[in-house]
Amino acid sequence: MSKAVPEPVTKLIDALSRLPGVGPKTASRLTFFLLRAPDELSLGLSDALRELKAETKFCSVCYNITVQDPCGICSDSRRDHSMIAVVEEPLDVLALERTGVYSGVYHVLHGVISPVNGIGPDELRIRELVKRIDEGEVLEIIVATNPGLEGDATAMYIQRELAGKGVKITRLARGLPVGGDLEYVDAVTLSRALQGRGEL
Amino acid sequence: MSKAVPEPVTKLIDALSRLPGVGPKTASRLTFFLLRAPDELSLGLSDALRELKAETKFCSVCYNITVQDPCGICSDSRRDHSMIAVVEEPLDVLALERTGVYSGVYHVLHGVISPVNGIGPDELRIRELVKRIDEGEVLEIIVATNPGLEGDATAMYIQRELAGKGVKITRLARGLPVGGDLEYVDAVTLSRALQGRGEL
Repeated sequence: MSKAVPEPVTKLIDALSRLPGVGPKTASRLTFFLLRAPDELSLGLSDALRELKAETKFCSVCYNITVQDPCGICSDSRRDHSMIAVVEEPLDVLALERTGVYSGVYHVLHGVISPVNGIGPDELRIRELVKRIDEGEVLEIIVATNPGLEGDATAMYIQRELAGKGVKITRLARGLPVGGDLEYVDAVTLSRALQGRGEL
Repeated sequence: MSKAVPEPVTKLIDALSRLPGVGPKTASRLTFFLLRAPDELSLGLSDALRELKAETKFCSVCYNITVQDPCGICSDSRRDHSMIAVVEEPLDVLALERTGVYSGVYHVLHGVISPVNGIGPDELRIRELVKRIDEGEVLEIIVATNPGLEGDATAMYIQRELAGKGVKITRLARGLPVGGDLEYVDAVTLSRALQGRGEL
């Protein structure tokens, strides 16, 4: 850019542009907002970014993000350690926690099998999951990967890896979203809802 | 949030949520992206944010953002210092520079008069503009505020403030955007294009 824009400004625009969903236009807009905003805003964000990597690690049991190891859930004796929900991302743990009805523990894969993106089973924490099962305490695995092609393929791979280990493997139910409208539900979801229909 | 999300993570989500156009969902998505991304990404962004405020200031002449004072444009003797383009934001300077046809200097107001947002003339750099005119070197002021209600009101206010100072005051032309389609142009723009029609 021309000398109309000083280097610290272009540097921040470039850094912000590397975030997903943030193009050069949004990055400029955010940068010029921060220039006008009080210093606390940019400095607070700067500190938070530094601390994110400095103060967090992965739990050595479930691979969720945590400050202490093992994480709060894995070290909680009131949780049911015989039940593991296998999820793709730390955000999925948060989603299940918000339901308030799940009392088991978790295993975060950090992705799904996705040949298109070059992600095979070895890039995920599947080996670590098998190791947890082999240790013998686990009775049920709830595969809670996203309901889609890649999530299903990952679930199937996990099922095959754990076959014959005497652990029950379940998958989250498919069906109508609560509050949804039959008219707007896609055909695949509706057919799953039909197959999985329950008695009133 | 529950103990499923450690404090450094929520802290970054909160900090990102304070940016304009970034809601809690986008902030979580960005945070978990940064957790998985290489450290350089979050640390580079952290440094860029710190340097933005530490290494930039406003030019004491035109109030554009700059590293050295006066800025590169104000200290450039090849520019025409008798012509000042008055713009709302530093990004507008960039837009005019990109045209490659403007050789004058700038004056950045840092906003527009906007009673709704509690921004009056005193919140803008209008007094400083008047002072630059009073110093006598300036022959033409091009009011390049945005073509809209607030930009127009600000232009009118500036015109009144500078009346009788013997400086020519112009405004950017309104008309059809190049590459635009007559069919889709709004009526106000089209009527301005009619009023401002030129001979072929």
